[in-house]
Amino acid sequence: MTLHPAVAAVRLPVRAALSGLSAGDVVAVACSGGADSLALASAAVFEGRKRGLRIVGVTVDHGLQPGSADQAEQVVVQLARLGVDETLTARVQVDATSGLGPEAAAREARYAVLEEVASRLSASVVLLGHTLDDQAETVLLGLTRGSGGRSLQGMRPAYGVFARPLLGVRRTDTVTACRVEGLDAWDDPHNHDPAYTRVRVRERVLPLLEDELGPGITEALARTADQLREDTALLDELARSLLSEAGREGGLAVAVLASAAPALRHRVLHRAALAAGVPPSELTRGHVLEVDRLLVDWRGQRWVDLPGHLRALRRDGCLAFVRADG
Amino acid sequence: MTLHPAVAAVRLPVRAALSGLSAGDVVAVACSGGADSLALASAAVFEGRKRGLRIVGVTVDHGLQPGSADQAEQVVVQLARLGVDETLTARVQVDATSGLGPEAAAREARYAVLEEVASRLSASVVLLGHTLDDQAETVLLGLTRGSGGRSLQGMRPAYGVFARPLLGVRRTDTVTACRVEGLDAWDDPHNHDPAYTRVRVRERVLPLLEDELGPGITEALARTADQLREDTALLDELARSLLSEAGREGGLAVAVLASAAPALRHRVLHRAALAAGVPPSELTRGHVLEVDRLLVDWRGQRWVDLPGHLRALRRDGCLAFVRADG
Repeated sequence: MTLHPAVAAVRLPVRAALSGLSAGDVVAVACSGGADSLALASAAVFEGRKRGLRIVGVTVDHGLQPGSADQAEQVVVQLARLGVDETLTARVQVDATSGLGPEAAAREARYAVLEEVASRLSASVVLLGHTLDDQAETVLLGLTRGSGGRSLQGMRPAYGVFARPLLGVRRTDTVTACRVEGLDAWDDPHNHDPAYTRVRVRERVLPLLEDELGPGITEALARTADQLREDTALLDELARSLLSEAGREGGLAVAVLASAAPALRHRVLHRAALAAGVPPSELTRGHVLEVDRLLVDWRGQRWVDLPGHLRALRRDGCLAFVRADG
Repeated sequence: MTLHPAVAAVRLPVRAALSGLSAGDVVAVACSGGADSLALASAAVFEGRKRGLRIVGVTVDHGLQPGSADQAEQVVVQLARLGVDETLTARVQVDATSGLGPEAAAREARYAVLEEVASRLSASVVLLGHTLDDQAETVLLGLTRGSGGRSLQGMRPAYGVFARPLLGVRRTDTVTACRVEGLDAWDDPHNHDPAYTRVRVRERVLPLLEDELGPGITEALARTADQLREDTALLDELARSLLSEAGREGGLAVAVLASAAPALRHRVLHRAALAAGVPPSELTRGHVLEVDRLLVDWRGQRWVDLPGHLRALRRDGCLAFVRADG
């Protein structure tokens, strides 16, 4: 029997993600019961067995909707049938008062509990089932923020204990892989609720973009994220060293900043404004450019007013952020 | 009479664009007769007169459609009525054999003739009427290319003799400005022909994005372009110096490249592959990453095949691009 291409497409990157591990190592797989994470769990069992790894399926019950405990139970049964070595259901409380939206709050809670579980299990890695389609959606969602490369860099393939081996795999391949392997994937009704921006991006925006701009747009968005993530990593590093180089008792040395490239100056000013207490959601590029003029286009402006009752001003060769009532 | 806000929105950036010029300087304004360039020409006349500048309206006749000469003639009449000091009609031959698409070939021809005219007039600047909406469309068109920041940086506000003062002005403001000033703007039927990708972006993609993601998307796209242009300028400069630092008789010094950040390594490899003769349209990020593995993940790979009958290989501590039949 030849291996179905969709199953191979899922297994290959999972194999690569597990390639550094040794027999006995613990691998946690986060699984919602959806096609992507179910195909991921199946591939992890298959590839993990060959290496003698211990595969633990983890399902998270957010308790946000009636029947969520039943759904979690069903995933546990599926994971057991798949042949994982252990299953684990983590219940989370979503903090409705966090100030994040409900989607972001649920996501924060999910990652926190997965990290906790990973630490308890001494897991070497926690696999997440995000696909190339999720990545493209994330980039499009970032476009609305309009804050350049940072908002377009999508999800990281790996960070901390987490890894996303399917970030280069199409969602349809995970659906096909489940069908071929006889896995009954759960189609979360939330995934079709147009109240969520992400759902509208998935069901309306991306299909229109494919129709009007060509079928390669999903891959193009994911590729763009990869490149911008690299670029942002370097630019952030350079900005960090510029910031520490310019740091003085009385603020940031104007002479040091003024001779730096605009890309770095603007990053440093953004960072310094946040550190001074400007609320992140209120700090715009317009503010940053205005503060920048204190450095490179100074004609005696007294100060620049910033959100959070702060102002930026230039004194004694330094740029300082001070309280507006100070 | 108070100044209409739309007229002010157009005049303000035009004033800034002309602020460095002195009486007698020549300013060319490219004008198609559309609302954007007509509003631009009107603002240039108004602001230019205050400074004693000589404003020359230039219209380009591509000769691509029947009646284009009549249309050009009509624009000349409008420009004269606006009070420009001189009008000039430039006829261009679009090179259908250039290998560029018809849109790109017409654009190339247009810029070439405008440069020629500018030089003949000794113009200090050639003003172009691109708006914030054009910028957002350009970013969306770039998304389909999927080559990271480079394809998303949109149009430059200024380069060579050209300046685009309206890049921060909404198209609707230019339409309103024309109406308020009694200017009869021409609505080019090409601007509604869905055979052009740009027209589909304007009439179908952007409106859907505004509906689904929120009304700020056009501004967000333009803002993203501004930031990515800054980032790309710095990264390109750093890549250029890395490339020259790594250059050796036998190729590029592996030790120099391998210690550089991925963002710079990948740029240098992309550049070096093009310089070696790989056809730009065939060079993918996949190729670049494979060549990169010769630097940072070398396990004795013999070479990497590249389009254009070339291959990259590692020898004597250098990365070299050689002919595949060599």
